[in-house]
Amino acid sequence: MVVKIRTTLYAFWLSSCSWRVRAGLHFKNIPFEEKPVDILREKRHLTEKFRIINPAQKVPALVIDGTTIIESMAILQYLEETRPEPTLMPNTPLLRARMREICEIIVSGIQPLQNVGLQSHFETKEKFHTFSKYWTERGLQTLENQLKNTSGHYCVGDQISMADLCLVPQLYNAVTRFQMDLKQHPTVSKFYESLLQEELFKETHPKNINKNIKE
Amino acid sequence: MVVKIRTTLYAFWLSSCSWRVRAGLHFKNIPFEEKPVDILREKRHLTEKFRIINPAQKVPALVIDGTTIIESMAILQYLEETRPEPTLMPNTPLLRARMREICEIIVSGIQPLQNVGLQSHFETKEKFHTFSKYWTERGLQTLENQLKNTSGHYCVGDQISMADLCLVPQLYNAVTRFQMDLKQHPTVSKFYESLLQEELFKETHPKNINKNIKE
Repeated sequence: MVVKIRTTLYAFWLSSCSWRVRAGLHFKNIPFEEKPVDILREKRHLTEKFRIINPAQKVPALVIDGTTIIESMAILQYLEETRPEPTLMPNTPLLRARMREICEIIVSGIQPLQNVGLQSHFETKEKFHTFSKYWTERGLQTLENQLKNTSGHYCVGDQISMADLCLVPQLYNAVTRFQMDLKQHPTVSKFYESLLQEELFKETHPKNINKNIKE
Repeated sequence: MVVKIRTTLYAFWLSSCSWRVRAGLHFKNIPFEEKPVDILREKRHLTEKFRIINPAQKVPALVIDGTTIIESMAILQYLEETRPEPTLMPNTPLLRARMREICEIIVSGIQPLQNVGLQSHFETKEKFHTFSKYWTERGLQTLENQLKNTSGHYCVGDQISMADLCLVPQLYNAVTRFQMDLKQHPTVSKFYESLLQEELFKETHPKNINKNIKE
């Protein structure tokens, strides 16, 4: 008897961190089911039931290989180490450092400061947006500079890497949630537009997860 | 003629991200000089001169092997890949995932939300502290839960890893800048206290970098 261990992604369609992992699973051809956790209206991530899955009470969380892994970058790195082909990493330490610089500019420099969970700390939605946009803008300026030096067909050289997986969801947020104009960042904008045309990002796009949204 | 390429760490004594890298360099016995960048009073990170070193205008930045690497976690990973001994990583993919979960809870879940750079966005220092302490507290709760499952003599098993390098500087900030009480998190508190006694953290401690501070 073969016991099939399921891979389950707990995620929210509008969560950029969830999209990173969803795209990583698709890229590596790992079959999985996605269980939606509404972090916006129903706030399911704050329930006791979900705390058992992820004590951080955040999405994403991935049940894989009989365990649960949390934190999107820890998940992506685990997938890379256990399923190295196709790879999401460039092949030299220096290029991997360049990739990780881009990832961190987004993962620790932008995403935490535009996370929807912060909004209740601000008196008005406008004040929260001003705050978030300021930090996103600073991050985009750095990304524009980095991409000029690192990019080929993709963010780092000529193959898709974790940098692309971080870039697309973050820019989708910047453009759709914050109506930010990417024109001042032509390199960033160019990669965002071209990556959106890739099958990988079409398949894993929030619009494809939540069929009800219209833009 | 031997051309000696210098390793230079641009850092600030009070920056937790700088301390992570300073400790990593010490741990791996890499000779380096530290150049102070005052991000608090003189705001040297915002000068044009520093923007050339790090376009993100943040500390740390490491000049090594004839290039400059930014973002503390990209730097630590680069050091690990190019100078693997002594290692800062556990030896299985799952334990490395556990290590990276702890790192990310701190690096993207706590640090960006207590960064001193955010303060000017809040009307009063008190409002900023309330905000920062809320997110630090949430992070500490998660860490308490994770450490119960992952720790041995150190945060992950019985050897020092990147998780310890992230934990100590963040808790130092929580205790000294925000006067947070760690009693509610006995496991976190236990590791913080015992790690502070390690030569590695004594040598690289902010007090050791800025001899003028008193506590």
